Amino acid sequence: MLEADFKYIIDTFFTLFAMVLIIFMVPGFAMLEAGLVRTKNVAAVLTMNVMIYAVASLAFLLIGYEIAFGGWESDTQSIWAAFMFQMAFVGKTVNIMSGGVSERVRIIPLAIFTAIMGSIIYPLVVNVTWGADMLAGTMLDIDMYDLAGSTVIHSTGGWALLAAILIIGSRKGRYQDGKIRVIPASNIPLVVLGALLLWIGWFGFNGGSVGSISSVENANLVAKTIMNTNTAGLAGAFIAGIIMYFRYKLLDITMILNGALGGLVAVTAGPDLYDMYTPILIGLIGGALVVFAVPLFDKLKIDDPVGALSVHLINGIWGTLAVGIFIDDISFLAQLKGVVLIGVFVFSVSFIILYSINKISKYRASDDEQLEGMDVSECGLEAYPEFKRVI
Amino acid sequence: MLEADFKYIIDTFFTLFAMVLIIFMVPGFAMLEAGLVRTKNVAAVLTMNVMIYAVASLAFLLIGYEIAFGGWESDTQSIWAAFMFQMAFVGKTVNIMSGGVSERVRIIPLAIFTAIMGSIIYPLVVNVTWGADMLAGTMLDIDMYDLAGSTVIHSTGGWALLAAILIIGSRKGRYQDGKIRVIPASNIPLVVLGALLLWIGWFGFNGGSVGSISSVENANLVAKTIMNTNTAGLAGAFIAGIIMYFRYKLLDITMILNGALGGLVAVTAGPDLYDMYTPILIGLIGGALVVFAVPLFDKLKIDDPVGALSVHLINGIWGTLAVGIFIDDISFLAQLKGVVLIGVFVFSVSFIILYSINKISKYRASDDEQLEGMDVSECGLEAYPEFKRVI
Amino acid sequence: MLEADFKYIIDTFFTLFAMVLIIFMVPGFAMLEAGLVRTKNVAAVLTMNVMIYAVASLAFLLIGYEIAFGGWESDTQSIWAAFMFQMAFVGKTVNIMSGGVSERVRIIPLAIFTAIMGSIIYPLVVNVTWGADMLAGTMLDIDMYDLAGSTVIHSTGGWALLAAILIIGSRKGRYQDGKIRVIPASNIPLVVLGALLLWIGWFGFNGGSVGSISSVENANLVAKTIMNTNTAGLAGAFIAGIIMYFRYKLLDITMILNGALGGLVAVTAGPDLYDMYTPILIGLIGGALVVFAVPLFDKLKIDDPVGALSVHLINGIWGTLAVGIFIDDISFLAQLKGVVLIGVFVFSVSFIILYSINKISKYRASDDEQLEGMDVSECGLEAYPEFKRVI
Repeated sequence: MLEADFKYIIDTFFTLFAMVLIIFMVPGFAMLEAGLVRTKNVAAVLTMNVMIYAVASLAFLLIGYEIAFGGWESDTQSIWAAFMFQMAFVGKTVNIMSGGVSERVRIIPLAIFTAIMGSIIYPLVVNVTWGADMLAGTMLDIDMYDLAGSTVIHSTGGWALLAAILIIGSRKGRYQDGKIRVIPASNIPLVVLGALLLWIGWFGFNGGSVGSISSVENANLVAKTIMNTNTAGLAGAFIAGIIMYFRYKLLDITMILNGALGGLVAVTAGPDLYDMYTPILIGLIGGALVVFAVPLFDKLKIDDPVGALSVHLINGIWGTLAVGIFIDDISFLAQLKGVVLIGVFVFSVSFIILYSINKISKYRASDDEQLEGMDVSECGLEAYPEFKRVI
Repeated sequence: MLEADFKYIIDTFFTLFAMVLIIFMVPGFAMLEAGLVRTKNVAAVLTMNVMIYAVASLAFLLIGYEIAFGGWESDTQSIWAAFMFQMAFVGKTVNIMSGGVSERVRIIPLAIFTAIMGSIIYPLVVNVTWGADMLAGTMLDIDMYDLAGSTVIHSTGGWALLAAILIIGSRKGRYQDGKIRVIPASNIPLVVLGALLLWIGWFGFNGGSVGSISSVENANLVAKTIMNTNTAGLAGAFIAGIIMYFRYKLLDITMILNGALGGLVAVTAGPDLYDMYTPILIGLIGGALVVFAVPLFDKLKIDDPVGALSVHLINGIWGTLAVGIFIDDISFLAQLKGVVLIGVFVFSVSFIILYSINKISKYRASDDEQLEGMDVSECGLEAYPEFKRVI
Repeated sequence: MLEADFKYIIDTFFTLFAMVLIIFMVPGFAMLEAGLVRTKNVAAVLTMNVMIYAVASLAFLLIGYEIAFGGWESDTQSIWAAFMFQMAFVGKTVNIMSGGVSERVRIIPLAIFTAIMGSIIYPLVVNVTWGADMLAGTMLDIDMYDLAGSTVIHSTGGWALLAAILIIGSRKGRYQDGKIRVIPASNIPLVVLGALLLWIGWFGFNGGSVGSISSVENANLVAKTIMNTNTAGLAGAFIAGIIMYFRYKLLDITMILNGALGGLVAVTAGPDLYDMYTPILIGLIGGALVVFAVPLFDKLKIDDPVGALSVHLINGIWGTLAVGIFIDDISFLAQLKGVVLIGVFVFSVSFIILYSINKISKYRASDDEQLEGMDVSECGLEAYPEFKRVI
């Protein structure tokens, strides 16, 4: 057998393996968000998650992939595997965004934005980073290192979310009389299940982004990437627990998990480049950032029920810059330029599109709909119809 | 290393990978069905699912595999991997059936049928399609193309279910005074989790059915199969959502997920044969069929709490015929012949066996047992003993 | 390509695959235990599970791995993959232990024990069995066969649990006025989901423990190992169901699942050595042992809410001895010696350390805290705050 054939076969198999892990993030996000919102909004949140997978993926299949990569070709592995791997990423950017506007967003206008995100906005971001690179040679050429998307995925989703929150506003009653009303997560087991599925999906996300496992060098790189990814998650969970304990003598599991996710986001830009100890530091900082960012956004009355801005935007930025800090060959300024350019582009384009859609079909559910819960108005059913509710 | 050894190793590994994905369908079916039924029947449904995995798999191990394949041999990969892959399929046919008679079926007679299904009925179906083929050369020779079981798995399960519903009847109170009583799903997050785990399992089901990934051609075929499988699921979810929205202005997530599953069932007969756009059409039709079939079965007073007939029987037939419609080299009549022969065989044999078992040990729980819930009478416990119930 | 390179690549990939399956045991244990305890202790149990993964893994990364294996080296596959595979095991020993003391154990002292278990106790056990083997040539040299840890993982966790129960005591009100108060599982779907995720994880645990898939012989061995693992689980579930039915005419799903887990633990010492029928016998005995051990521990007033002693300790011993019974080349006495030496070591060291920690920071929550639930006192939140509770 030709060595090239061997590599083609192994890398196709490996990409499919990595892709499947990423698809576990679909139930991962769904369960995480369903657990974090109130019972009256659970079915709507779940419907959003399934809608996002369907719409974003179809949009990427029909339009987005070609914009991102300039054509359907692949020499080193099956193009169909390469597509599936990339497709598995698309919905994530919208997932990040939709979680943060849950409990008041209507699904149909969100579906329209999802289609635009999956077919145009995200593909353009990929084009200028991992893809065909239409900015190559121009002043705006982005030369940052971002293995698996601290910026391309996570802060992209985060910026779109920030734009969405500014347009849609906070949940009815969340900031009232100068106080912040605490709204507890309704189903902690689902939160834990969802976060752990995301964690597992991250192995595929980052490991698969190495792109090949079919040489000794790449096999080591893939394994180190997965190990470092995991380590940052561990450290993020650890520090969030430590901070919560020393502050409140209480271990808030939702914060611990968001700390883990923060660490995972932060390491995502360069898990292949770090030695085995650096991800501990990156994860510790990432987890701590989440713990401090969550109340900060609340002070700014930026209402984000699932902590997505703290996890994905803040740590997407931190993680991308971290590569420039910890790796000698990587320019900090190039990283910063990438963060800023992508940020400006995604935020402004998302804002304009969200704003325009909002003129035609309001994103924000009425106060009455929010009071009754989005499940009834959006889905015509309840998530747990038989359980008597306290509230 | 010999090329044959390389292929043996890679294909064994690949088959194990695909098998593991299919095993995720065990929790997949369990969660889906547990979420769709009422809380008082949840533990019984879960017990059925675990029982089915145990009994059907043991029956296939001890008797069925040999009937299906004529012996324990494999040249191109480990026989143990090949067995595990096939074993992972068996329970699915009974899962399809058991879901549709849930909320009134007793577990012990179902276990007896499961043993017969796993040791004889399903193995005979496999024998004449993918297996040793004892009908070869006879008038009844089945020559249809069915890569991963639109007919062999899904309509087989569906026909057995139809026979079971005719014998067992509808749930107490479901069709009363000429009206159909709507019985809502009790736990939507479980429905979503279950459906998404099934979706992921499908990648292993269909991708693994290609049988080998160890050549460039086969690597492409596996990847295309998985991609096309996914695409049909996306399209099925999409169309179900669209129809629900234009009819009711509501996005019923259980219907959207059944639409996705319908698309997945439909593409299963030929995902390796289609170009990348055909599965969209197949999935759109599959999803639409589900949306229209669900109320139709209710009109016929065929009580199927989880929509299994619409998803698996209708789309199993549609998907098998679709190969004959969309692929030039495949004879529509051969597909139709396969659908009819398998249908007649499975339905009549299942009916006779179910009818006979029913004489000895009644399938149908008494009205009182149904009223109190199957959990108490079958399992002696409750699924959620601490939650106060509305109903 | 060099054959050695081919093997390196394939085995690295395979180890990563197996590792990922094992990581599914993290949500597996979390969901199983969250389902088995009362709602008021669910968040605390989940927090323990996430804490264990974070603390045990970091401890193993920073200290434990080197103690176990004497250094960071691997010739035949990526050291990072080898590490991740071993790291995936560590938390399991503490998971086994923490489940059995749930509903009354405080998390911070448990975290301290977790750090010691992950950095020292478990690594020492690995050192003298699978690792660097510092006892080689001494009188205490352990020469048992234990492929994937019936003793090294499962009875290690079990002995630590027994020590913990003796120190911490039973749950408030569990054994009162000479009676055993039955405390039902609060969420059966989570129990089923968790047990099935553990089951799937076992394929990676045992299959991956073969260590290589890159020869025809090893490919067969891996596949047979996975098949035999599964078969024992099937048989364990089957017999538990049969016993429950003939005793009570009721199918208690929690007991059926613990039967399956018992079978899985029991086969773990030698799934690569057995023919395809022996695991049935091993699983039948394993499942039956669970059904009889659970009430026995209760009679001894050893309070183990999740049945971990019956599943992991009893079957860890049974499974290790079974290799000596069923395999000619394996000495029963060597197996027994391993079981006893590891048991004495782990039990006494765990007892001393738990006892010492207990002097500084009490493990046992106060009666009031137990009455109110550990969620409030440990986490400051509730697992299901919106659901009205019966109790």
